[in-house]
Amino acid sequence: VTDHEFDRATQLTRSADDGFAVTFSDQWGHAGGVNGGFMLAACVKAIAAVLPFPDPIVVSGMYLRPGNPGPSVVAVEPIRAGRTTAFAQARLSQFPPGAPAEGAAAREVLRVTAAFADVSGATPQYAALTPPKLPDPADCEPLGRLPDVAFSHRFAYRVPVLPGWAAGKPSGEPSAEFWIRFADGRPADTLTLPLIVDAAAPAVLELGARSTTIELTVHVRARPAPGWLACRAATRYVSGGYHEEDFEIWDSAGTLVAQSRQLALLSR
Amino acid sequence: VTDHEFDRATQLTRSADDGFAVTFSDQWGHAGGVNGGFMLAACVKAIAAVLPFPDPIVVSGMYLRPGNPGPSVVAVEPIRAGRTTAFAQARLSQFPPGAPAEGAAAREVLRVTAAFADVSGATPQYAALTPPKLPDPADCEPLGRLPDVAFSHRFAYRVPVLPGWAAGKPSGEPSAEFWIRFADGRPADTLTLPLIVDAAAPAVLELGARSTTIELTVHVRARPAPGWLACRAATRYVSGGYHEEDFEIWDSAGTLVAQSRQLALLSR
Repeated sequence: VTDHEFDRATQLTRSADDGFAVTFSDQWGHAGGVNGGFMLAACVKAIAAVLPFPDPIVVSGMYLRPGNPGPSVVAVEPIRAGRTTAFAQARLSQFPPGAPAEGAAAREVLRVTAAFADVSGATPQYAALTPPKLPDPADCEPLGRLPDVAFSHRFAYRVPVLPGWAAGKPSGEPSAEFWIRFADGRPADTLTLPLIVDAAAPAVLELGARSTTIELTVHVRARPAPGWLACRAATRYVSGGYHEEDFEIWDSAGTLVAQSRQLALLSR
Repeated sequence: VTDHEFDRATQLTRSADDGFAVTFSDQWGHAGGVNGGFMLAACVKAIAAVLPFPDPIVVSGMYLRPGNPGPSVVAVEPIRAGRTTAFAQARLSQFPPGAPAEGAAAREVLRVTAAFADVSGATPQYAALTPPKLPDPADCEPLGRLPDVAFSHRFAYRVPVLPGWAAGKPSGEPSAEFWIRFADGRPADTLTLPLIVDAAAPAVLELGARSTTIELTVHVRARPAPGWLACRAATRYVSGGYHEEDFEIWDSAGTLVAQSRQLALLSR
């Protein structure tokens, strides 16, 4: 545990049988909830504690119920460890908001499966994707933190132009490119990328809609270099009330370090 | 069960406790293996038998070990059923190839999580994606079935131009657009789309490489209309030996019915 906000907020207490206790604060969500990427990263950190490889090359989380601040339990099941890849599952359970810890049954909030390996030294062999073309962070606008969204205070954002939704005028184009980093200067690593892919406003805000994640898959492609991370987010298809969102994270050296896709439900 | 190859090959015998027995033939893989999408679809079919909603809106499969023809068991765990969405997990286990069924321990081959809902009547509300621009199937070339790849006989493929890899000259561009349908005329449905996203040659054949799937996520966006399915496959980033492959399936009415992304290991 390093002395940064994320590490303190995901401090895990190991119990028997690969179980971990963690208490979520109200600082990693908003409106009484907890951010989905944050819960995913807490589960990934618990899995990392029991697997023999350091990097979560692919993680999938199924969002069963909204998370809330309070005591939580992460039960980890190592599934298989091979020569280069290891697999595990994590189940995050919580007590319903306001329920007394004694007597109430914990309910599963998030089911995570993950494959871990070692991506140190991974170098690109083929690339048809390029980093977002963004002005230097110093030449970008800070995206104002939202007073009532505690989560937005955990990160610093720099945008080339302020998004339409921020001015109350959604552009109709659900895509965005911007810089992000932890507000307290914590360097990103492969364990926090599953949080950062979900740390920006949903692209569908530009459609005047809100979004509830059903499933989020993250590929971690390389270890990030220190510094600002360049992000590209886009929703390309909305149908029957469901939408996907793709997210790319490129590090300060111009390397693709994470890709994610989520399926989410549109709401107003 | 309808009287088509896929349905017979995935005939499930329900045992106690949401367990299902299924015997894989040697007709849905090659080189002694079983196709990953086929195993995923078998698990999705088992999950569909226990959940209250018909369509797998998102499915994630972790490929723990290679699958092989022979007896298999799918253990389904319903996780949560809400008002519009239900979640479940499936674990597919097999005996090692050549091992006697008695005495040998079954080993888990595939771990699947899925969310089901009802996408009947889903219509597009926003689209920044368009269907592949392909000549009519009748004006395309049939892609020859490979004599030693039984799996390739389960589908019919129509391509605008023969791919480089098929002539032994990989193009260096790992992407493709083509038509596909079941060879025996079975209509695709939302339960078979998780197979069809993995039913074509990997795009990285155009890099002169082969591919081993680690994880495959499928979003089912709509119920497919009858007829040929237009597909778009692309690998856009290869790094440290890992690559992603994105796959889209558009039905004959021009509707996006499935999107998938897999993380896979490159091999020679």
